[in-house]
Amino acid sequence: MNTTAHPAPATSPSALHDALLARLRRVHLLGTVSGLLGWDEQVNLPADSADQRGDQMALLAELQHAAATDPETGRLLDALERQTDALDADQRVNVREARRDYDRAARLPADLVAEKARLTSAAYHAWAGAREDNNFPAFAPFLEKHLDLARREADVLGFGQKPYDYAIDKHDPGMTCELTAALFADLKTGLVPLVQRLDASPAARAAAGIEARLTGFDTAAQQTFLTEVTTAIGFNYRRGRIDVSLHPFCEGAGADIRMTTRFHEDKPLDALFSAIHETGHGLYEQGLPLPLQGTPLGQAAGMAVHESQSRLWENQVARSRAFWRHFEPRYREHFPQQLASVSPEDLYRAINSVAPTLIRVESDEVHYNLHILLRFELERRLFSQKLAVRDLPEAWRALAKELLGLTPETDREGVLQDIHWSGGAFGYFPSYCLGNMIAAQLWATVRAALPGLEDDFARGDFSRLLGWLRENIHAHGRRFTAPELVRHVTGTDLSPAPLLAYLEERYGSLYL
Amino acid sequence: MNTTAHPAPATSPSALHDALLARLRRVHLLGTVSGLLGWDEQVNLPADSADQRGDQMALLAELQHAAATDPETGRLLDALERQTDALDADQRVNVREARRDYDRAARLPADLVAEKARLTSAAYHAWAGAREDNNFPAFAPFLEKHLDLARREADVLGFGQKPYDYAIDKHDPGMTCELTAALFADLKTGLVPLVQRLDASPAARAAAGIEARLTGFDTAAQQTFLTEVTTAIGFNYRRGRIDVSLHPFCEGAGADIRMTTRFHEDKPLDALFSAIHETGHGLYEQGLPLPLQGTPLGQAAGMAVHESQSRLWENQVARSRAFWRHFEPRYREHFPQQLASVSPEDLYRAINSVAPTLIRVESDEVHYNLHILLRFELERRLFSQKLAVRDLPEAWRALAKELLGLTPETDREGVLQDIHWSGGAFGYFPSYCLGNMIAAQLWATVRAALPGLEDDFARGDFSRLLGWLRENIHAHGRRFTAPELVRHVTGTDLSPAPLLAYLEERYGSLYL
Repeated sequence: MNTTAHPAPATSPSALHDALLARLRRVHLLGTVSGLLGWDEQVNLPADSADQRGDQMALLAELQHAAATDPETGRLLDALERQTDALDADQRVNVREARRDYDRAARLPADLVAEKARLTSAAYHAWAGAREDNNFPAFAPFLEKHLDLARREADVLGFGQKPYDYAIDKHDPGMTCELTAALFADLKTGLVPLVQRLDASPAARAAAGIEARLTGFDTAAQQTFLTEVTTAIGFNYRRGRIDVSLHPFCEGAGADIRMTTRFHEDKPLDALFSAIHETGHGLYEQGLPLPLQGTPLGQAAGMAVHESQSRLWENQVARSRAFWRHFEPRYREHFPQQLASVSPEDLYRAINSVAPTLIRVESDEVHYNLHILLRFELERRLFSQKLAVRDLPEAWRALAKELLGLTPETDREGVLQDIHWSGGAFGYFPSYCLGNMIAAQLWATVRAALPGLEDDFARGDFSRLLGWLRENIHAHGRRFTAPELVRHVTGTDLSPAPLLAYLEERYGSLYL
Repeated sequence: MNTTAHPAPATSPSALHDALLARLRRVHLLGTVSGLLGWDEQVNLPADSADQRGDQMALLAELQHAAATDPETGRLLDALERQTDALDADQRVNVREARRDYDRAARLPADLVAEKARLTSAAYHAWAGAREDNNFPAFAPFLEKHLDLARREADVLGFGQKPYDYAIDKHDPGMTCELTAALFADLKTGLVPLVQRLDASPAARAAAGIEARLTGFDTAAQQTFLTEVTTAIGFNYRRGRIDVSLHPFCEGAGADIRMTTRFHEDKPLDALFSAIHETGHGLYEQGLPLPLQGTPLGQAAGMAVHESQSRLWENQVARSRAFWRHFEPRYREHFPQQLASVSPEDLYRAINSVAPTLIRVESDEVHYNLHILLRFELERRLFSQKLAVRDLPEAWRALAKELLGLTPETDREGVLQDIHWSGGAFGYFPSYCLGNMIAAQLWATVRAALPGLEDDFARGDFSRLLGWLRENIHAHGRRFTAPELVRHVTGTDLSPAPLLAYLEERYGSLYL
């Protein structure tokens, strides 16, 4: 009989690993609470309750940071790293990723973290006001401070020579500025001619007008239809839900995924495709191994991979003819009057309309990539100090003209349009375009691997696709970086070629 | 210039008091997060997400307990108690109440707290199953363990000789078993004859049937109407909201009050009066001084006072003729067909129908008190060990027959009907009846203090009543115990006489 009141601390590799995971799960669990508070803030919070929510979020962030930087976690990692030979492959992934997270959290000085939090709050309000007033100079000092903090953060974490690499790696482990720049350059070479042909196409111009004819769609019926669609493609509403917020998003992890969309009677495709996009994110989260929740192997591989999942379902799947072969009859049952004068081909063209716009979030999937190339180029110049913050509006206008063929008349339609920089979220934009590339690359691979896949869609069956994604993407958690995962799954390096081929196939056949 | 890197710890009474409040606010803020998780669980949680929510709640409870029992709080209290002469009256209230909370939290052994948490979870499922199967013996062992834990808890906290006093004091500081028993005995003496006369009244029997004619009330219109009503009586929807849950409740504090109700097309009064009841709770929370949120002077005085606020708005106000003089025309506008064959007098009688029932939560405001007397008597006997758990069903039946004139055929309609004991919440039931008494006592006082008050209601103006409650009840926070508060506000001791007079006035005039 063991009569020791306090057992000796665990020292076997397996016991140390278990102790590490217990700590990681605790940090994660606090994160899920913060996530729920954030979701509730966007979905439910009464108008005058924001201060209290801010206090709650700050306290949770403090507790989460304390848990993430607990020196005992560092000691466990040290001990585990001394005996990695005794660990299996999964355990080594957990130690590697836990070390990455721990070092990044623990090395950051508390005053830098606090300063960034304060700045983010102030910069958000400054940005919102500057956008409203079309007054970039009012926002510029906040952006300069954010850039300065981002450089300091990169320096502390060992990226002093390549601060923008840190910004990118933070969202997409394994990606660098150089790699991203090479991919984007190749993409641009292929994309610009396609865009020029589409922009010059009378058929594409005509299609862009069709969407405006979709009006008077009752929002309750919209909601019913999009619930049918998102259920059919595989979202498990017993472990998640969809609500309404100003900007659509997907929040949560593991057993509780909260998605949102927004409804306008005269823009029915907006709510539907937003919901399908968020469902792609939700399917990824729901597909991560639930028993490993809160540990690296139960977490997403990065923002680009996350975005690839949402884009694949939104674009490759839900904008396809096969998808609408199944859903169009249902859609017309819900909206017989509204669609009476819209032919099947016109509906399909409305779903796949292509036209340049100055606003990223309103952009179609072809032009969208150019919006990202613009932002990436500007971030790169800012970080390499080839561009000063005060010269941003002018540089934005020049690049918008070059890439989109449009010049913003105001900074509201230009440099002030996005929220990201007000939060210091540099290096985040590239994920969107990398996600588009990965989605197309996965799409080419899965179509070859699963013949007749689109016939499944036409029957309303998405289970083979989802199963393939679960097995090939979701099941890996953070085992691979995005470039590694793409190579592992597709057998080729991350490349813009499949995206270009996909866009050419879909939009060339429609409009060129 | 002060070059001290770490300033010396604060020692002035005022600085110590500020430090104490900062710690209390932190505990409170964690409590508001737990509260939101609990609200979300009842309102939003997907069906299969309960385990994750359980883990989140357990972690928050652990963090809150750690914050509430931090020895530094004890040191601050010790220091402040050594110099109470230097504190003002408000500060002394804070120290007194913080001491009460701290000692109760800190003195409880962690194993007792953990054991109670585990038991509560197991006992809930045992109770739900036993209720379903009408099998009290399956629940009895859990109830016995809860009683044992409750006695141990009382003993640790210095109530060893009077464990039921602790159970009552826990929910209503200042109340004892003896005081409650004396009040309830007086109430019973006056109430039983009134109930007998009402139960024998053909007019009352006829009225009980009218409610069944209120059918086919569209729930969206119900929601619109109850929002109108609850807004009119003063609920601030910019600092709160109302949603739908299985059982109505009010959760939250300060800047963010979450109420719920539930809708049935054929029971429109249920949703409406549930919402008004919860609005009464919400008005109290919204009326507590917001700048003092999280400190004793910004918290409710106990469950009985809380219940007095919900009952006063639900019963004295919203079941009055004056109230319906204003709202009946609006109600008929929302439901013209449904109310076409219901005369104004019949509608008023449906709102004030009186009939005995075995189920507490379905009971009218007259009989409701008898349900509480029954439970109080049984809890008292259990705690004084004059009644064994195994003999509870028989004792319940005997008391139901004596008090309500009805004998439950099954334990589902008897001893197994309420959830409270499955959570070890002894001493909680009396608050409901004490709340009814306090509401009636306040009602008598405010009607005398504010002549023409019901004329206000008939004009849809509830601001004078709300203002009076804010000033006389809400503004005090935990300054007074319930008996002290009643004496302070009404000039007389807590008594059942005003409740008896009110019931006689309202129901005697209708049915006798």
